[in-house]
Amino acid sequence: MKFCSSCASPVQQSIPAGDNRLRWVCSGCKTIHYQNPNMVVGTVSTWDGRILLCRRAIEPRYGFWTLPAGFLENDETTEQGAERETREEAGAKITALKPFAMIDVPHVNQVHVFYRAEMLSPDLDPGEESLEAKLYSAQDIPWDHIAFRTVYKALKWFLEDQQTDPMFERSTFHYDAIALGSRQRSTA
Amino acid sequence: MKFCSSCASPVQQSIPAGDNRLRWVCSGCKTIHYQNPNMVVGTVSTWDGRILLCRRAIEPRYGFWTLPAGFLENDETTEQGAERETREEAGAKITALKPFAMIDVPHVNQVHVFYRAEMLSPDLDPGEESLEAKLYSAQDIPWDHIAFRTVYKALKWFLEDQQTDPMFERSTFHYDAIALGSRQRSTA
Repeated sequence: MKFCSSCASPVQQSIPAGDNRLRWVCSGCKTIHYQNPNMVVGTVSTWDGRILLCRRAIEPRYGFWTLPAGFLENDETTEQGAERETREEAGAKITALKPFAMIDVPHVNQVHVFYRAEMLSPDLDPGEESLEAKLYSAQDIPWDHIAFRTVYKALKWFLEDQQTDPMFERSTFHYDAIALGSRQRSTA
Repeated sequence: MKFCSSCASPVQQSIPAGDNRLRWVCSGCKTIHYQNPNMVVGTVSTWDGRILLCRRAIEPRYGFWTLPAGFLENDETTEQGAERETREEAGAKITALKPFAMIDVPHVNQVHVFYRAEMLSPDLDPGEESLEAKLYSAQDIPWDHIAFRTVYKALKWFLEDQQTDPMFERSTFHYDAIALGSRQRSTA
């Protein structure tokens, strides 16, 4: 950030009165330009026990497999955003969304939230951001080609829940934080 | 937003290629300036069964009672942010944080996440943003002077859990969205 988005004067870093962090403050109109983490929302969607994955057509991690997910937009709920991303990236129609997991990724200033969901049909129609979309049985998941650690973690949790709580009656909610440079762990 | 924070040229609203929403796009360097929801993180902290509330010393809702909570900052996890806000606003030292509730507030582009937590002592030292901090028994909660609907909802959920699951063994995670103009409901 170099200039004020309100008046175009240069911004400088300083700690505002009553605050304890460096912020970008306008040298002209004195507006404080806060910067905060973004949310990424997505789903673990299933049809007949198989899990919906998309192969990325965009960087980062072009060609790797991911759960349908993307940045939460203004004017929508996390649930609406998760449904929208699943529709946009996989062309999947889903229902019965339930909060499933939250994973902090502080080194990129993101918080990832995943919902569990049921597909209304096995029909898929991958969007521009996906090379393909596919339903995977547990034993076929391409673990060596998963795009992000948050996706890896969410998939592992989901499969564990399938074992210990097949009907998802407990509605377990999972939480973890991913540290920069930490090795991929199989479960939380 | 009027000017580009990278080059100070005027910005205009347009839908970028491959996108489907109006964004602020720089007329000079073509940078797209995305705007996304913010997260608010806080705690339902208890000591000896009583719940920690703070009376706001700032607008909005000056003088009303709230759970300690505030905007998630860059470079911290939601858990760290919730702990920090509880320390800053109430001077409370807490432990054993567990994800408790997520509430979408799309009309202000916010997502509120609350953790349950246990206080390490009953000592309080309210910060600049609080007129006072106080431990409330369930029967004494000032329901008519609660600052925000998200706080009201989180408190109701917490008290219900105390009734149905006194040891919090189920670790129930609550979710709801608050619609603009919807009336305050007692539970989700």
